[in-house]
Amino acid sequence: MKLISYQPKSSSKNYRIGAIHGESVIDIQAAYQALLVSRNEGSIADELETILPAEPARFFAIGLPAIEKAEEAYQHILKSKEELERLNREDIKLGNPISAPGKVICVGKNYEDHVAEMQGDIPEFPVLFAKFNNALIGPEDAIETSDATKKLDYEVELAFVIGREATKVKREDALSYIAGYTIVNDTSARDLQKRTPQWLQGKTLDRSTPIGPWVVTADEIDDPGSLSIRSFVNGVERQASNTSHLIFDIPFLVEFISNLITLNPGDIILTGTPDGVGFAMDPPQFLKDGDIVTLEIEKIGRMENRVVHIK
Amino acid sequence: MKLISYQPKSSSKNYRIGAIHGESVIDIQAAYQALLVSRNEGSIADELETILPAEPARFFAIGLPAIEKAEEAYQHILKSKEELERLNREDIKLGNPISAPGKVICVGKNYEDHVAEMQGDIPEFPVLFAKFNNALIGPEDAIETSDATKKLDYEVELAFVIGREATKVKREDALSYIAGYTIVNDTSARDLQKRTPQWLQGKTLDRSTPIGPWVVTADEIDDPGSLSIRSFVNGVERQASNTSHLIFDIPFLVEFISNLITLNPGDIILTGTPDGVGFAMDPPQFLKDGDIVTLEIEKIGRMENRVVHIK
Repeated sequence: MKLISYQPKSSSKNYRIGAIHGESVIDIQAAYQALLVSRNEGSIADELETILPAEPARFFAIGLPAIEKAEEAYQHILKSKEELERLNREDIKLGNPISAPGKVICVGKNYEDHVAEMQGDIPEFPVLFAKFNNALIGPEDAIETSDATKKLDYEVELAFVIGREATKVKREDALSYIAGYTIVNDTSARDLQKRTPQWLQGKTLDRSTPIGPWVVTADEIDDPGSLSIRSFVNGVERQASNTSHLIFDIPFLVEFISNLITLNPGDIILTGTPDGVGFAMDPPQFLKDGDIVTLEIEKIGRMENRVVHIK
Repeated sequence: MKLISYQPKSSSKNYRIGAIHGESVIDIQAAYQALLVSRNEGSIADELETILPAEPARFFAIGLPAIEKAEEAYQHILKSKEELERLNREDIKLGNPISAPGKVICVGKNYEDHVAEMQGDIPEFPVLFAKFNNALIGPEDAIETSDATKKLDYEVELAFVIGREATKVKREDALSYIAGYTIVNDTSARDLQKRTPQWLQGKTLDRSTPIGPWVVTADEIDDPGSLSIRSFVNGVERQASNTSHLIFDIPFLVEFISNLITLNPGDIILTGTPDGVGFAMDPPQFLKDGDIVTLEIEKIGRMENRVVHIK
């Protein structure tokens, strides 16, 4: 499934969990309710908000058990051709599917060619840093920038979302802890990132970091270590690589991180960016008001965000 | 007020917000309910969980409006000598008052003598890094360590808790955004902190970072920039300084950070540690199973935690 956070364009209702099927949108909670009714289990519908919340942050905080129910509901609707009121893709706005993660853990220096272009050293251990939720926006939101930085840069990254509590996980079990995959633009204010030894202040500016367009559930991606990954600015390709070039692959990262930090459902981990960032161009090219940044990862999709300078 | 998160020792009920008065503990929500009844406003008692939650994380997420009501309730109980059932200090366990902050922002290299002992450079801008909530424990909990690190170190720090949304705050208004002050042990696994260029992985080990013993509300500390600050290991003084030596003081930090990152009620900011850490001793002295770490900050109090090695 491609799990989305959506809102009808015509209203300002709360965002809800849905799934995209072709050009139509299935509301997951409504679908599950229809499934329960079809099984004569409609009486537990009162507990729906607990067992299968419509609110995206609560849904992902439950993680894999919620996704299993969502999958059942989704299949029921597809098979039964039930007359569930479906919205059209064109009639909805997509929100950030992972809007309130407990942790956003970023991995730096994780593609050799990017380490080289930034004139760094290949790390012996994964380099971990954080973003906060103030930075996160949805796939159709504008990336906001301001006078706080003159050097805002893009970084396309494959991200994975944790599906169940993970502590001291072994590499061979790692993928079973993952709920799904998404695309994140780990925008980086290079001037702020580099003016102190710690990168945080350049990595978590308000409303700088789009996530989306959806979370592709883990069953659809057998091998997250062989996906093409690209970025474009105003249609011109800037980054083009493959997740097979990750220095520390996803199973390693789950093992490494979960041996230090207990991960919870809904936590999101950004796996690093390949070479081709604006900072390393000659001369460097930073994002400016009106630029369109497009990110693509194979088997996930494409996300396009405009940059807007806020006075 | 000294706002605590407490639980009767005799039960495993949820932690609740209370205030310590001498040797007794006033439950804030019960006190507010008594105040409402005394004003014949008992009918709004149903909304108590919304306007003045008993759950500490929800209380601090409301911030200053909740603290104002808590203060009214506290004064009412003290003045009216009302027969509110009070618990004795001895009969409660203290929990982490700030257990689920939206952000934990740490400031590194913020005392000159500590920068010198770590052989660093005086920073031109505040050095910001993060902890995640997996690290946070209460003032009576054990600091957990494991084979993941051989170099766990203590760092006594004055921390402040945000009381209302703060964005682009000016220095002169900064203190009005603060709900209160507390003590944090920013424990640091020096081996993990220093094995990559980013400190995060050495700063956020599970159950490593005690907060407490309470949050002293801002009205009780006119000048957070003149408090003595000390730490002891097994009764021997290790750190002794004064917050007057902060390179970037609290008003500056609020202005600096809020111009990059919108702060919300319940967010907590750690202001840095003075010299005297174990890493800088000759030979270095790290924490080991059974050690007792005691932290003291003037006008706040003292927090004592045992170190426990977990197999």
